[in-house]
Amino acid sequence: MAGSVARITEISARSDVSFEDAIKIGVDRATETLRNVQGAWVKEQKVDVTDGVITHWQVVLEITFVLD
Amino acid sequence: MAGSVARITEISARSDVSFEDAIKIGVDRATETLRNVQGAWVKEQKVDVTDGVITHWQVVLEITFVLD
Amino acid sequence: MAGSVARITEISARSDVSFEDAIKIGVDRATETLRNVQGAWVKEQKVDVTDGVITHWQVVLEITFVLD
Amino acid sequence: MAGSVARITEISARSDVSFEDAIKIGVDRATETLRNVQGAWVKEQKVDVTDGVITHWQVVLEITFVLD
Amino acid sequence: MAGSVARITEISARSDVSFEDAIKIGVDRATETLRNVQGAWVKEQKVDVTDGVITHWQVVLEITFVLD
Amino acid sequence: MAGSVARITEISARSDVSFEDAIKIGVDRATETLRNVQGAWVKEQKVDVTDGVITHWQVVLEITFVLD
Amino acid sequence: MAGSVARITEISARSDVSFEDAIKIGVDRATETLRNVQGAWVKEQKVDVTDGVITHWQVVLEITFVLD
Amino acid sequence: MAGSVARITEISARSDVSFEDAIKIGVDRATETLRNVQGAWVKEQKVDVTDGVITHWQVVLEITFVLD
Amino acid sequence: MAGSVARITEISARSDVSFEDAIKIGVDRATETLRNVQGAWVKEQKVDVTDGVITHWQVVLEITFVLD
Amino acid sequence: MAGSVARITEISARSDVSFEDAIKIGVDRATETLRNVQGAWVKEQKVDVTDGVITHWQVVLEITFVLD
Amino acid sequence: MAGSVARITEISARSDVSFEDAIKIGVDRATETLRNVQGAWVKEQKVDVTDGVITHWQVVLEITFVLD
Amino acid sequence: MAGSVARITEISARSDVSFEDAIKIGVDRATETLRNVQGAWVKEQKVDVTDGVITHWQVVLEITFVLD
Repeated sequence: MAGSVARITEISARSDVSFEDAIKIGVDRATETLRNVQGAWVKEQKVDVTDGVITHWQVVLEITFVLD
Repeated sequence: MAGSVARITEISARSDVSFEDAIKIGVDRATETLRNVQGAWVKEQKVDVTDGVITHWQVVLEITFVLD
Repeated sequence: MAGSVARITEISARSDVSFEDAIKIGVDRATETLRNVQGAWVKEQKVDVTDGVITHWQVVLEITFVLD
Repeated sequence: MAGSVARITEISARSDVSFEDAIKIGVDRATETLRNVQGAWVKEQKVDVTDGVITHWQVVLEITFVLD
Repeated sequence: MAGSVARITEISARSDVSFEDAIKIGVDRATETLRNVQGAWVKEQKVDVTDGVITHWQVVLEITFVLD
Repeated sequence: MAGSVARITEISARSDVSFEDAIKIGVDRATETLRNVQGAWVKEQKVDVTDGVITHWQVVLEITFVLD
Repeated sequence: MAGSVARITEISARSDVSFEDAIKIGVDRATETLRNVQGAWVKEQKVDVTDGVITHWQVVLEITFVLD
Repeated sequence: MAGSVARITEISARSDVSFEDAIKIGVDRATETLRNVQGAWVKEQKVDVTDGVITHWQVVLEITFVLD
Repeated sequence: MAGSVARITEISARSDVSFEDAIKIGVDRATETLRNVQGAWVKEQKVDVTDGVITHWQVVLEITFVLD
Repeated sequence: MAGSVARITEISARSDVSFEDAIKIGVDRATETLRNVQGAWVKEQKVDVTDGVITHWQVVLEITFVLD
Repeated sequence: MAGSVARITEISARSDVSFEDAIKIGVDRATETLRNVQGAWVKEQKVDVTDGVITHWQVVLEITFVLD
Repeated sequence: MAGSVARITEISARSDVSFEDAIKIGVDRATETLRNVQGAWVKEQKVDVTDGVITHWQVVLEITFVLD
């Protein structure tokens, strides 16, 4: 039952739009190099601020993908 | 002072739109069966992914409702 | 190297629109009285509910600002 | 050995006297509707303040009760 | 999308045989009263000892079941 | 909606009488310099001991106060 | 500087009166066998309930004592 | 001293037999692609349930392997 | 009420058979030198691996024993 | 007993030399503006890296100072 | 904005000199195989002891590197 | 396999020089009374400050020693 093992890898992604856009950017980048991505857990959420304005929405994700 | 006791119950809810929609779905479902729902604390946020696309936005909520 | 020290302060902010609006309200209020705000980490997210409807989206933030 | 299963439920209770009174109020309310309450673990303690005076002592409890 | 909401409830179960037997006892008891049990997360594991001998294997479980 | 932002500040207070007296001392001191104190969360509780006798009851509090 | 090393040991104590009495019972018992007890940190607080009445107030303490 | 660096990677593995079988499946799969696996720390344990029967025993492992 | 104080001590034990055997080895060793052992809480579980094979099953336990 | 209240404030400090130098920089900066600093607890330690070389040693500190 | 995604990987490194030397060894090893290492967060610190003498200083690091 | 059980004990140690010196002081003191000390995990690090100067570097250690 080799298919029943998955790996969990941690990435950080950021967007200048929103947290949900950052999650999409992170999932997109993960699926470029990893096969069988199943999901992502949001571990952290933070924003960068410059001159009082939010410039980036950043998330840390734990990505799960099934090993072949 | 019977009204000063509340119960806290944990639910998981998911939406194919956004985390905030998932929270609304969870709160709606809770208010169907529980009276006097006061609030919800977001304990977890995760997404399901199929073929590189986010298919569900899922939240785990701790719902507080006042006991009569 | 006096510029290399930052302070981290905790605030709670709420919006009747969304979590991201609450973060903006919190960052705006912080930049009114603090100089050099660099970023904010989202520590908690919760909603208030009245009669089954979400009335407020609330966040607890850790705000970092560089000391002169 | 059906008697060896217990349920754990979370409640919040408050008193205008003390934390220990709040615990009693919470345990009393729990025993009104639950049979075989065995104990409670104190998960959180907080106070409400108005005009510099503590008006409520609030506890969050995890109540354990044996299932028949 | 009513089916997408689940509830999470916490139980404690014990066996005089093993942790895995305790998990089975807990899941059995949960499925007697709850429909659509999907899974259980093992939160705690402990043993009772009398006269140097392990008499009970106890687990605390978070049971997830889908709401109709 | 400027009133919807609060600050959370951490203090430690001690009493030679009891934990609840320590909480009152901490809240009193906070309300001397901060306006609109709303509440306090008890983060830690410890005692000092000298010659086998408890000499101080100490609490660490997170004080919330609304910003004007 | 041999005196600058302390040991931290964990005990559980219970009283039929209050948490603060349980702390005193625990500190008393610790000072019977340990010299130079300096303090205790309250790690857990729970109550036992029988027939809806609180029968014991129990604390888990981390006791610090200086080594000679 | 190049041999003194190890990497820690997280995997999830499941078995239809037991948690210990799931650990073996996870360690087997890790040793297929990683050299010098030294050990695994059990971070999570959960079970899947269908129609009241446990169908899978799942573990999340942190695998340590020495880098050449 | 001298009997109401217990001590909690932490041990690590390992077996070449299973986690449950490691718990028994730990409890056996504890009862050799400590009287009135009441129970043990499983704090950690890990395995050692050599050449792709699990050689040891190790647990960290918090042992509770009543003081005379 | 006004002197028995202390405040705890969080700062982040960095050095291009070492963690201990970063702690000194943080304590120095805190004592410039705060009276009666008593101590600091190290909450986080991290390093910045550029082109494979550590350029900064950064600490997050919780500074305690007694209120007059 | 492909450059805005980073990966976080966990390593353990040890030195016979100091924790800071262990961090350098870990960062050096990481930069051998990973491009664009940005920083490292110190998650754990421990020492090995033989015959009363510290023989190794070991750290667990979370290494962040930007993906191209 | 009696040698496969270890005990873990917690100590606090301080130095007026550095954290690493404090760790050595703690390990030295532990090896005076305990046989077969294997290692120590650094659980906390803090400094004492007087008149703006760091006077002590303090660590809390979990010491592991094998039981005969």
